Amino acid sequence: MSSGTDPPPGGSATGLDALFDPRSVAVVGASQNPAKWGYWLAKGALAGAHRRTVHLVNRRGGELLGTPFLPALDALPRMPEHVVVAVPSQEVRPIVTAGLAGGARCFTVISSGAGNRQEERELADLVTRQGARLLGPNCMGVLDTTSELRLSWGDFPAGTVGLVSQSGNLALEIGRLLARAGQGFSRFVSLGNQRDIDAADALDSLIAHEETRALAAYVEDFRDGRRLARTMAAAHAAGKPVLLLTVGRSDASERAAASHTGALVSARATVEAVCGESGALLLDTAGELVDTAVCLLAARAGGEAGTRDGIRVRSPEPDPGPARVAVVGDSGGQGALAADTFAAHGLDVPALPEATASAVAAHLPHGAGCGNPVDLAGAGERDLGNYSRIAGVLLHGGDVDAVVLTGYFGDYATADPAQTARECETAGELADAAASSGRTLVVHTMARDTAAIDVLRRRGIPVYERIEQAARALAGAAKLRAARPQPRCEPTVRARTPAQAPLSDGGYETVRKLIASYGLATPAAEFVTSVEEGVEAAHRVGYPVVLKAMGLPHRTDAGGIALGIEGERALLTAFARMREATGAPRYAVEAMATPRHAVELIAGVRRDPAFGPVAMVGIGGVAAELLADTVLATAPLTPERAHEMLLSLRHTPLLTGWRGAPPVRLDMAAGALCSLARAAVEHAELSELEVNPLLVHPDGAIALDAHAVVELRP
Amino acid sequence: MSSGTDPPPGGSATGLDALFDPRSVAVVGASQNPAKWGYWLAKGALAGAHRRTVHLVNRRGGELLGTPFLPALDALPRMPEHVVVAVPSQEVRPIVTAGLAGGARCFTVISSGAGNRQEERELADLVTRQGARLLGPNCMGVLDTTSELRLSWGDFPAGTVGLVSQSGNLALEIGRLLARAGQGFSRFVSLGNQRDIDAADALDSLIAHEETRALAAYVEDFRDGRRLARTMAAAHAAGKPVLLLTVGRSDASERAAASHTGALVSARATVEAVCGESGALLLDTAGELVDTAVCLLAARAGGEAGTRDGIRVRSPEPDPGPARVAVVGDSGGQGALAADTFAAHGLDVPALPEATASAVAAHLPHGAGCGNPVDLAGAGERDLGNYSRIAGVLLHGGDVDAVVLTGYFGDYATADPAQTARECETAGELADAAASSGRTLVVHTMARDTAAIDVLRRRGIPVYERIEQAARALAGAAKLRAARPQPRCEPTVRARTPAQAPLSDGGYETVRKLIASYGLATPAAEFVTSVEEGVEAAHRVGYPVVLKAMGLPHRTDAGGIALGIEGERALLTAFARMREATGAPRYAVEAMATPRHAVELIAGVRRDPAFGPVAMVGIGGVAAELLADTVLATAPLTPERAHEMLLSLRHTPLLTGWRGAPPVRLDMAAGALCSLARAAVEHAELSELEVNPLLVHPDGAIALDAHAVVELRP
Repeated sequence: MSSGTDPPPGGSATGLDALFDPRSVAVVGASQNPAKWGYWLAKGALAGAHRRTVHLVNRRGGELLGTPFLPALDALPRMPEHVVVAVPSQEVRPIVTAGLAGGARCFTVISSGAGNRQEERELADLVTRQGARLLGPNCMGVLDTTSELRLSWGDFPAGTVGLVSQSGNLALEIGRLLARAGQGFSRFVSLGNQRDIDAADALDSLIAHEETRALAAYVEDFRDGRRLARTMAAAHAAGKPVLLLTVGRSDASERAAASHTGALVSARATVEAVCGESGALLLDTAGELVDTAVCLLAARAGGEAGTRDGIRVRSPEPDPGPARVAVVGDSGGQGALAADTFAAHGLDVPALPEATASAVAAHLPHGAGCGNPVDLAGAGERDLGNYSRIAGVLLHGGDVDAVVLTGYFGDYATADPAQTARECETAGELADAAASSGRTLVVHTMARDTAAIDVLRRRGIPVYERIEQAARALAGAAKLRAARPQPRCEPTVRARTPAQAPLSDGGYETVRKLIASYGLATPAAEFVTSVEEGVEAAHRVGYPVVLKAMGLPHRTDAGGIALGIEGERALLTAFARMREATGAPRYAVEAMATPRHAVELIAGVRRDPAFGPVAMVGIGGVAAELLADTVLATAPLTPERAHEMLLSLRHTPLLTGWRGAPPVRLDMAAGALCSLARAAVEHAELSELEVNPLLVHPDGAIALDAHAVVELRP
Repeated sequence: MSSGTDPPPGGSATGLDALFDPRSVAVVGASQNPAKWGYWLAKGALAGAHRRTVHLVNRRGGELLGTPFLPALDALPRMPEHVVVAVPSQEVRPIVTAGLAGGARCFTVISSGAGNRQEERELADLVTRQGARLLGPNCMGVLDTTSELRLSWGDFPAGTVGLVSQSGNLALEIGRLLARAGQGFSRFVSLGNQRDIDAADALDSLIAHEETRALAAYVEDFRDGRRLARTMAAAHAAGKPVLLLTVGRSDASERAAASHTGALVSARATVEAVCGESGALLLDTAGELVDTAVCLLAARAGGEAGTRDGIRVRSPEPDPGPARVAVVGDSGGQGALAADTFAAHGLDVPALPEATASAVAAHLPHGAGCGNPVDLAGAGERDLGNYSRIAGVLLHGGDVDAVVLTGYFGDYATADPAQTARECETAGELADAAASSGRTLVVHTMARDTAAIDVLRRRGIPVYERIEQAARALAGAAKLRAARPQPRCEPTVRARTPAQAPLSDGGYETVRKLIASYGLATPAAEFVTSVEEGVEAAHRVGYPVVLKAMGLPHRTDAGGIALGIEGERALLTAFARMREATGAPRYAVEAMATPRHAVELIAGVRRDPAFGPVAMVGIGGVAAELLADTVLATAPLTPERAHEMLLSLRHTPLLTGWRGAPPVRLDMAAGALCSLARAAVEHAELSELEVNPLLVHPDGAIALDAHAVVELRP
């Protein structure tokens, strides 16, 4: 989170030149002891000494690899641009002060416990007021393999993935898995407590960094979530996929986040919705992130292998649908399991058209499976070239978006080393076919680290040990390909109108007025305190009526609602019974809405601490909780977005003309969602706003009940 | 599938002694050429030459590793017990005939294309008529690492998993993954075309084999599915978990199975239901199978580490619920992601009780997370012993069933080799804690193949590279632990009764009579051909009535049903309109059932080619297809089983008193399911039998519509 000061001076687009490629650097707290971080930071800094001036500081003296430790920052001939601080916490502030005085432009504070939250903020303000920048405190450091900057603990491989992480160990894990897949980091930023440089800042720098081709982030605390969303959308627009990990899917992890960093963990579904709107991909584990990154970096969509365009996620075309995959194996069993696994991950494994099947069959023995999966039936074993021939036919055929080899390729030379050259040659032919076709080739193999696999990896072909890794990666890539970031609709507040006077309570009577003022249809109603008033009101409203008790949190369960009251006698009975059951002092007498072919929705808005008001719509009715069919979007909403939400429910077919019923007015349902979202945006005192049910039918949409949670903030 | 001949002689329980541990073996088709299977089979056979007589046969002569090739089986001094046949297909039968003449007791036929299906069956009959056994043809061979028998292509590691597979390459893949996890095979049986020895035979032999502790199977063609189910249940009863892979989840794999082996692929859901009833676990990929096997082999449920009992799946206790997992990491981020991942896999990551949290906190610095996940917050780095101390507290605490270390342990010595001894020692302490507690410890680590990991694996602690592998394995183990195999209820047919006369058609009128004769309630109805008859019928049945057109496959969609007809005039209109719309020659006039608080179910039976009649019940009504909330069980059903089915629907709460409504008569709903299942069992001509809706309510259950698919077999 920028601390509100002026942006720092400096030539780069993101002002983080001094972070990633300083002309000079100092490690304060350098050590000769490999058990201390100061050792690894100093050693890492020295590895870039041919590119920049490196100073090591330790007041007790010493040296590392021939570089003497100087006693203090002031003792340096000239203050370095970037100062890494790895000292006991109470010494951090004096060092930063000295650095600022000498003109240092960037501080990476490894030290944890630099003070309480307030003291950390003051430290950040101190730095940013001078136009300098602060990474941390309580971080693991920063790495830029393209500028040979290693100011971090840990052995990170070089590659083209940029990582921003609030967890150091997770970054190590991601690094290990990337290395095993033949990839690594262009940059890694350990965010720590994000007192100045935050996730959005760091991601911005990665968008601008040419050598970074895919962005990965682990974020616990989203801070200004809307800003982060804009950054992710900017990355998508720049052709750089964003892969996000976060926590908060389970009670257990929410406990962890609360106890660990005190971060406010956003609800998972909200983050998922924001990712969908930003063209980012939310993943579950480090392994999934790495598998997907490797696949995206190899994907040929719209470009040639080896060029920067090769990884660009093409502008989505209308409804690309699930990615179509062809499976090729030299084992019927592995091919069939692969096909099942891809289908289970939502990918399409289409039957091959006659012409393609014939072209495949031309290379195979009689009786081999030429549908999809293609079963080489021993043809691969007899001649390895059949792998590249078949893959070539499928990659160039245009019937599928990706071809997956499954099972054995990569391992032929293991039992028979005489086959090494031929297998490596075939690997090269496979990579050629992928490159020339502009489509994706993925290999699943039981082999590990053989010569042929090395060829594939060097040529940018993703290789997976398990078929489920390939399936999840392709499914993630397909999801990103289909993503259409939403035009940003920011929660600006209109000029004040009477409708915007803050609500005093979240009861039905109040909320009904609010939503009506925003244009939602509601049934005719009067509010009464006695049975006599009730009878008169019903007369005016017109039978049949609904009677509702006011002031109850769970009206239905408490016996506080009576539907379909046909006349005065029934009303008297219902009133008496309801007063007995609920003791409510106030009642609504409403016209009963009974449109034909109506479907009950639930619609609402919840205010997320990081992402602001988030709109929700789902299938309502008595079993709504069991169905759990809901979709979220950040408020406010455009009518188009609201319409999309309605169309993305599992039960959408119920709305669009199910089994001969006329379709409901989706446009009016969408309008109601927009109104609710707008009301929540303009009423900051609303933590929650809910209409349930929102009855939609072939002639309109009407709010039959509503409530809100009002939280008056100072 | 046994070929119907007498069981073979021999001392072993399964009569497969000569398959797994023959006193003498011959490989016919032995070769000196490593590109030929005959080479690997001969080499594998020779590896057991110190335990048994090994002969190599090739009519062109030659030798391998000093053993000369003899020209023919007849040239051997004495006919071996087990003959492996790896020759061109037309030579198979003469060799088998010669072997039988000499008294061979077992043949493993590698050769594919031994003829068409009929010729293969004749070969099997030839063998079994002599009391001998046949494996294959078209198989990869057989392996028994406990008897040092290697009559198979491929380099399979030794261990305690018994594998039965219809795919050779898949077996190789499973072997590779097991080896990487420090496990391997006790026995591997490649089934090939199963002309004599089938999956159930092979699994039976593994149940009887003491050194085999877990059973794995890949089966495409289930043959006699009910027999296989009995075998799986027997394995469960013997304390040996069964892990099953099959194909047929997607259209693509069904195409593959059809083209590949001509196998009849059972519908996935049926196999899943059968596994549930047999206490077996159905998995999706080779990787999941291996991860789960390794976890089960380590699980301490009910036994001590290192003893055979250690892997026994304990007799299930009442509702064990989801397995409770404690997560321990030296990184808050990895711990939180792990907790989320376990929760997403249905495992419980419970908050630790105060006493346990305090016991954990005693070992940790102030501010470390002591809930669940436990965040060592650097305490592991400072003293590796904290890993084993914390794990010990949690394993012995009784609050969880499993403890998972996540992230870094196993890698401390990588950056600092001086820590190797201490890390290995800690690994030993961790294994000790797991053993003494009798609970499961699982390690997820970014390290690969370090000394500490070797210690863990040697001590039987599962180690995973990815947290999702640990989650899936623990979830699978929990599912097995909760499995309660059903008492077998075999589809015996009662003494013939009039109800059992074969149905001539599957129309409503016929099927209604059938199900009524089995005790299902149906509304009063009459069948008419004219409007005049209809009016008279309605008069007798009593208004309101329902009018249905007969002879339409999709009555509702075709306008062939009119509900709630209140009187004669409405009936006349409805009749005219329906005749106009459908042209149906015959109509039902039925009493309209309108019980309050009713829920619509769909109930049916489908006859599976391998598993016979399979009963289904689900939530019915207009959105039944969208809900897709169904559960299957093999027919016939006991009332208890039918009751369980109803209780395992996602929407079961709708049946048991949802939001204040009275519960429906589950006993009568279960009774209706039992009757339907029994009707299908006793009517072999029914391919499908369906009641939709089956209306269940607080006073009973009534079948409102029904139809069947009748397939008269010769």
